[in-house]
Amino acid sequence: MTAPHLPFTMAEYDRRLALVEARMQTLGLDALYVQDPSNMAWLTGYDGWSFYVHQGVIVIPGEPPLWWGRAMDANGALRTVWMEPERVLGYADDFVQSTEVHPMQDLAAHLRARGVGTGRIGVEMDNYYYSARAHQTLMTELPDATFHDATALVNWLRAVKSGEEITFMRRAARISEKMVDGILDRVEPGLPKNELVAEILGDAVRGADGHWGDYAAIVPLLPSGVDASAPHLTWDGRPFETGEATFFELAGCYRRYHTPFCRTVFLGKPPQYLLDAEKALVEGLEDGLQAARAGNTAGDVARALYAALAKGGIQRTGRCGYSIGLSYPPDWGERTMSIRTSDETVLQPGMCFHFMPGLWMDDWGLEITESILIRDTGPAECLCDRPRKMFVKD
Amino acid sequence: MTAPHLPFTMAEYDRRLALVEARMQTLGLDALYVQDPSNMAWLTGYDGWSFYVHQGVIVIPGEPPLWWGRAMDANGALRTVWMEPERVLGYADDFVQSTEVHPMQDLAAHLRARGVGTGRIGVEMDNYYYSARAHQTLMTELPDATFHDATALVNWLRAVKSGEEITFMRRAARISEKMVDGILDRVEPGLPKNELVAEILGDAVRGADGHWGDYAAIVPLLPSGVDASAPHLTWDGRPFETGEATFFELAGCYRRYHTPFCRTVFLGKPPQYLLDAEKALVEGLEDGLQAARAGNTAGDVARALYAALAKGGIQRTGRCGYSIGLSYPPDWGERTMSIRTSDETVLQPGMCFHFMPGLWMDDWGLEITESILIRDTGPAECLCDRPRKMFVKD
Repeated sequence: MTAPHLPFTMAEYDRRLALVEARMQTLGLDALYVQDPSNMAWLTGYDGWSFYVHQGVIVIPGEPPLWWGRAMDANGALRTVWMEPERVLGYADDFVQSTEVHPMQDLAAHLRARGVGTGRIGVEMDNYYYSARAHQTLMTELPDATFHDATALVNWLRAVKSGEEITFMRRAARISEKMVDGILDRVEPGLPKNELVAEILGDAVRGADGHWGDYAAIVPLLPSGVDASAPHLTWDGRPFETGEATFFELAGCYRRYHTPFCRTVFLGKPPQYLLDAEKALVEGLEDGLQAARAGNTAGDVARALYAALAKGGIQRTGRCGYSIGLSYPPDWGERTMSIRTSDETVLQPGMCFHFMPGLWMDDWGLEITESILIRDTGPAECLCDRPRKMFVKD
Repeated sequence: MTAPHLPFTMAEYDRRLALVEARMQTLGLDALYVQDPSNMAWLTGYDGWSFYVHQGVIVIPGEPPLWWGRAMDANGALRTVWMEPERVLGYADDFVQSTEVHPMQDLAAHLRARGVGTGRIGVEMDNYYYSARAHQTLMTELPDATFHDATALVNWLRAVKSGEEITFMRRAARISEKMVDGILDRVEPGLPKNELVAEILGDAVRGADGHWGDYAAIVPLLPSGVDASAPHLTWDGRPFETGEATFFELAGCYRRYHTPFCRTVFLGKPPQYLLDAEKALVEGLEDGLQAARAGNTAGDVARALYAALAKGGIQRTGRCGYSIGLSYPPDWGERTMSIRTSDETVLQPGMCFHFMPGLWMDDWGLEITESILIRDTGPAECLCDRPRKMFVKD
């Protein structure tokens, strides 16, 4: 039986499970429990907005994964995962947000019943949704188990995208382009921000090139003027104003695959400091793209960017990009590789990043970014194809 | 200095802080660390999509709260919180998604510096975002501290809404009504689901009655036919079809306050079993609303509903509602009170619930719900005002 909504071929899911099992063997894990909804989806196809309760996927080598979650969501699992129905385990509703019992008691019972309750179990210690209490409960219930911190274990195996996944990234990129085009068409002084967001979200979900759009793991961010000094403010009902720069941070999403894409729009005549920053940033992006090639490291990309920015008088440090792909709220990053000088991960063909050197200064901000694919040879391919500049509407 | 975007009066923030300090005194807490973004916003006004990194609010009795988070988000805090700039603490970007250092090391240093590093510290053990690793790191860094499980401590203090908050709930309700009206106007056989979602999201964000709309903590859910057996599936690009019921689970949101509202639409001529279920469900809602009055318990509401459903031949158990108000993804519930037979919380005027007895059967589903406000006397007030029925478009 194949679930009706499966996005990938079974060969693709087999590939993924084989990667996880090989990694588990290296680490000597008897079982792996993944609560990250992105990892759940990547391994099994599961797709539903149910990650606000405890749920996860159990991998025991040599058998198909087990989906485990709230009983009412087991119906959703039956509609979306590739495993047989007996691999879908639901717990009673009494466990939900109870102060007396905890869902991890039910999970522990399943692990015991399957003979891995005293084994070496991987858990995602620093993942959203795997709470401190969840871990404590599991440790209490399985006193003879050994717990291994498997934070980002699956996430790392997602780093190099398959051909099927790259197809999804490209579809998401078409949606990102459409969103940016719609912004440029519509933004003007006096237009309330929320009115523009309504159009952006509509473009995102309508999709592009005949492919429907999914919800992105982060809502559009579009601060203006002084607010653009802060990277993560959302919107309100105030109008766009002449004389202000607004950056638009957004991502098209196709079946949970994201291609983030940011552009800045200035309404009116931009001040020289913004034009200077734009020039330095675009040169930095170009130098970074040249460095973003197989065999180089993530740190090489950051160094190329920062050298170009420094030539333009901008001292920037920290993270200027991250691995991207399949994701759920609250983050569209994969939370593995970062483009920063301390990250010496070697770039491989098929890796995808949001190259994201946002500038957030004391009283202004500028974002011009690219989602990139590392190629077999040569510099990275930009997944979106729109002018790399600050747009000015005079 | 008052932040430019503060949604409430200072009297309201003073009220909230006083509630938290009183509760801390009862529990003998020297400090409280809240990572739940809803609690952060409720206490300080902070509003930004930055909860995908570790951040929180520290409450030490007798002084204003401290906002603590990633340095780049400190700019957003300066734009949104009521405290003075020196109460905003940022950590270096190197801590973000690092395998070598953890942000909680920085938090621990602040707690030590403020003299509470060996005290009794409340932490939200079972909250999204406060990960198992976060807690382990904090315990390691503060070996002489005593940790108290403060899960939902602040959430419980949010249960009774102030007048200012009820105004926001009512604005959100106007948006919910507009979203449902838009669905009824537009849904028809052949319309792809994502096209309708584009309109729903547009209505949500455009807002109503002159008030802009915020993003809801959950995206619209609208499964049809057999998929409606699962409560938490999102959308795809398939068309609505004649002969299928679709439930629409959504919430208008005004400045993070949610008024969830669900209705079901049948395209064509509904089968008798759905009409029978509709009748039982509407009667159950009416009986539940009568029971939802100050002095009764949450369990009383569930019992009234289930008795009426049983008369209609429907055996339902589990949770059929939850406290609502201010929220961030991944959940628009407050995660305190549940409407279920085992919850004997006494209802008080000003409490708000989503009374949500969804029916998810083997191969169909039905949702007709109300967001309600407990009044001083009499049955609960429904915040939205639309016919309580399954809509049929023939």
